[in-house]
Amino acid sequence: MADSGSKLHPLDLYDMTAAEPRLGSSNMVDTFSYDTLFSEGSTDTPLNPGLHAKYDFATAYPAPETLPLDGLIQSLQAAVDRDSTKVLAELAYYPHQLGALELREYTAEKLAADRGFTVTADEIALTNGSGEALGLVIQALTDPGDIVLAEEFVYMGTTSQLRRFGADVRGVAMDEGGIIPQALDEQVTALTAAGETPKYLYTIPEHQNPMGSTLSGERRKEILKIAHKHNLPILEDDCYVDLRYKGDVQPAFRALDDSGIVVYVASYSKLLAPGLRLGYFTASPELMRRALSFKLGSGPNQFAAVAIEGYLRNNLESHRDNFNPILEAKCDSMVVALEEHFGDSGATWSIPEGGCYVWLTMPESSDISTIRDKVFDQGVGYVAGPNFEADASGRIGKNCARLCFAFESVEKNAEGIALLAQLFKQHGAM
Amino acid sequence: MADSGSKLHPLDLYDMTAAEPRLGSSNMVDTFSYDTLFSEGSTDTPLNPGLHAKYDFATAYPAPETLPLDGLIQSLQAAVDRDSTKVLAELAYYPHQLGALELREYTAEKLAADRGFTVTADEIALTNGSGEALGLVIQALTDPGDIVLAEEFVYMGTTSQLRRFGADVRGVAMDEGGIIPQALDEQVTALTAAGETPKYLYTIPEHQNPMGSTLSGERRKEILKIAHKHNLPILEDDCYVDLRYKGDVQPAFRALDDSGIVVYVASYSKLLAPGLRLGYFTASPELMRRALSFKLGSGPNQFAAVAIEGYLRNNLESHRDNFNPILEAKCDSMVVALEEHFGDSGATWSIPEGGCYVWLTMPESSDISTIRDKVFDQGVGYVAGPNFEADASGRIGKNCARLCFAFESVEKNAEGIALLAQLFKQHGAM
Repeated sequence: MADSGSKLHPLDLYDMTAAEPRLGSSNMVDTFSYDTLFSEGSTDTPLNPGLHAKYDFATAYPAPETLPLDGLIQSLQAAVDRDSTKVLAELAYYPHQLGALELREYTAEKLAADRGFTVTADEIALTNGSGEALGLVIQALTDPGDIVLAEEFVYMGTTSQLRRFGADVRGVAMDEGGIIPQALDEQVTALTAAGETPKYLYTIPEHQNPMGSTLSGERRKEILKIAHKHNLPILEDDCYVDLRYKGDVQPAFRALDDSGIVVYVASYSKLLAPGLRLGYFTASPELMRRALSFKLGSGPNQFAAVAIEGYLRNNLESHRDNFNPILEAKCDSMVVALEEHFGDSGATWSIPEGGCYVWLTMPESSDISTIRDKVFDQGVGYVAGPNFEADASGRIGKNCARLCFAFESVEKNAEGIALLAQLFKQHGAM
Repeated sequence: MADSGSKLHPLDLYDMTAAEPRLGSSNMVDTFSYDTLFSEGSTDTPLNPGLHAKYDFATAYPAPETLPLDGLIQSLQAAVDRDSTKVLAELAYYPHQLGALELREYTAEKLAADRGFTVTADEIALTNGSGEALGLVIQALTDPGDIVLAEEFVYMGTTSQLRRFGADVRGVAMDEGGIIPQALDEQVTALTAAGETPKYLYTIPEHQNPMGSTLSGERRKEILKIAHKHNLPILEDDCYVDLRYKGDVQPAFRALDDSGIVVYVASYSKLLAPGLRLGYFTASPELMRRALSFKLGSGPNQFAAVAIEGYLRNNLESHRDNFNPILEAKCDSMVVALEEHFGDSGATWSIPEGGCYVWLTMPESSDISTIRDKVFDQGVGYVAGPNFEADASGRIGKNCARLCFAFESVEKNAEGIALLAQLFKQHGAM
């Protein structure tokens, strides 16, 4: 072996004749430095510590008490009892890039029944949650510097992926009914005239995150017309559609248009459980192939897929019938508490027909963003408005917060909102 | 709404007053063209059709009959019976970026017991199979044009990811004992002298894919010394370590070195089932953070994690005691059949101590790469050597094939090898 000079090598410290591996000890050797080795595209991003306030209105959880854990396990067992060879073969194979066939077939049936459009199982790709689906489509459509449009306040998980892949995200004006079609048309026209033609539009049309708004069918048709006029694909994130407890479901963009201009993304995370990590998307064939070429590894886990398919095929209606009244009661308790404790403050809030979120808007002069950590430490978690700002400019949202009403109980929603009002007063925010 | 001119828009075809969404019909509208919209980095890659030959020696499957399906489901049910609130909470939360804590704790215990090194649960990240782990680490360490070293024949899933992220992969000379340390040292020295300093080394030291070779502890120590001399991190892929049925396990690179120069990747896909999609990695803290910043979404599925942790905590030894004799019998039947049918052909083959693969080398003049599709159609699947060539140069491997002995039965291994010899003769390859 080559001698590398007089400097003692870390390995010289080892007994080179020892048969047994040495147990690790962090003081034995120099620490290897990666300083010159990290890729230019990598960033040293702290991990999320995963903390939760006593009253957790911060993050996007469905109601845990409705999670059909026994039903999922029984469905898995039933699939094994029915045909263990088939289930064994599915688990013993690396999943197809599109994911488990049975769940894709079920998903196609569900989309036809619930969302009014027909695709085949081979036109659906299952993913590790809708986050992976969005990331794959974004990579297939985004070059660094591309302008991408989204609602002016929108899910930060998507905008952070958009920025990571180089998009310059611009917010589109909204009102309580979601994106304002005419504002979209004027914005695209102006951007195009300035040589900044936007690449596509990302939108959550049903029970929007964080605003809770739903686009009417009429607005969707107008937006599709604008999209075709400007050659602007629509990336439709329909992950909350199953969580409607009042009002009428609106047609998916995808159900109104077969041209391929709509990419449809959805998820079983909200209907069943985030921890199952099963989302999906459907798009025109070449876009699907290009998106899937960005996958790191094969399709998502078959174990959860077998359980989900078996459970939902027999229990979708009863599950939703159980689930949505609970969501409604939780929403009601939060809204009633907001009326009681914020009614005189000049604040306004959205009253959603489904989903998980109420969007609280305090008077313009109120800054509830900078006091967020203090309020969290004192017991109430929320996500401050600037986190959702599409263009991350810091211009708007300091007086706003997303309140998730779905995770805590009816009682804790009421208690938490009372405490929130008290803390806002304490910190001079109302 | 602005009028976009005289051309009829696709949306004009719709009844804009209809309350109901329209069922999809692919002939209603023009097909939207993405031709100018795909990202420069995207490629139109066909999906894998997922075909299997009658005798499937082609792909990397463990023995499906050993998959503890009932045990996994019972473990999941037992975890629910023990503490349903805890399991509910885990499934109802989005997984931590590192994945389920209990499985990380178990993995840390398993690494200490089986691989002789100690890390904490917070130094382990669970991933959607080891493919995701490798993809994340590769992104954190690779800039386009970087030279990365790997065994001269090596797992194509990794080399395809390396190339996707811009690596120029170069093969390191091997013999039946794996990488030849002196060859590595000379190659790195020569590359560095030519201004082409390699960035890191990717290696599968135990039951290598596709060669079946295992690096001795002595060679690993020599390679670590070379790695420190040249500032060359080692990306250690230990996914086959649980699949040893004879001989002595060799120390992991990671167990021989605490400096951070070793990134350790492994998986539960081979020990339990690929369809569970649970791999993991551990690396120095900043490298882990940078790698995880490339994740599309949160940690892997909690459902499988709960089942795996519960099952392995109680059954690891009995599972391996059941699993590995079956693998050995399958390997033996393939090797005996090779002796019987290829003994006079001038062919050689590896005789592994574990894993899933025999590497068949026909005489230099024999080309079993170009006849692969014909042989597949006639009933025997294998992966031809050039698919594993590290640098994809097409220089070597046409006379080689990877034969997976783990998926088919003992009987089918014998029958399939007999048929393979007959087909090679028919196509003039022996």
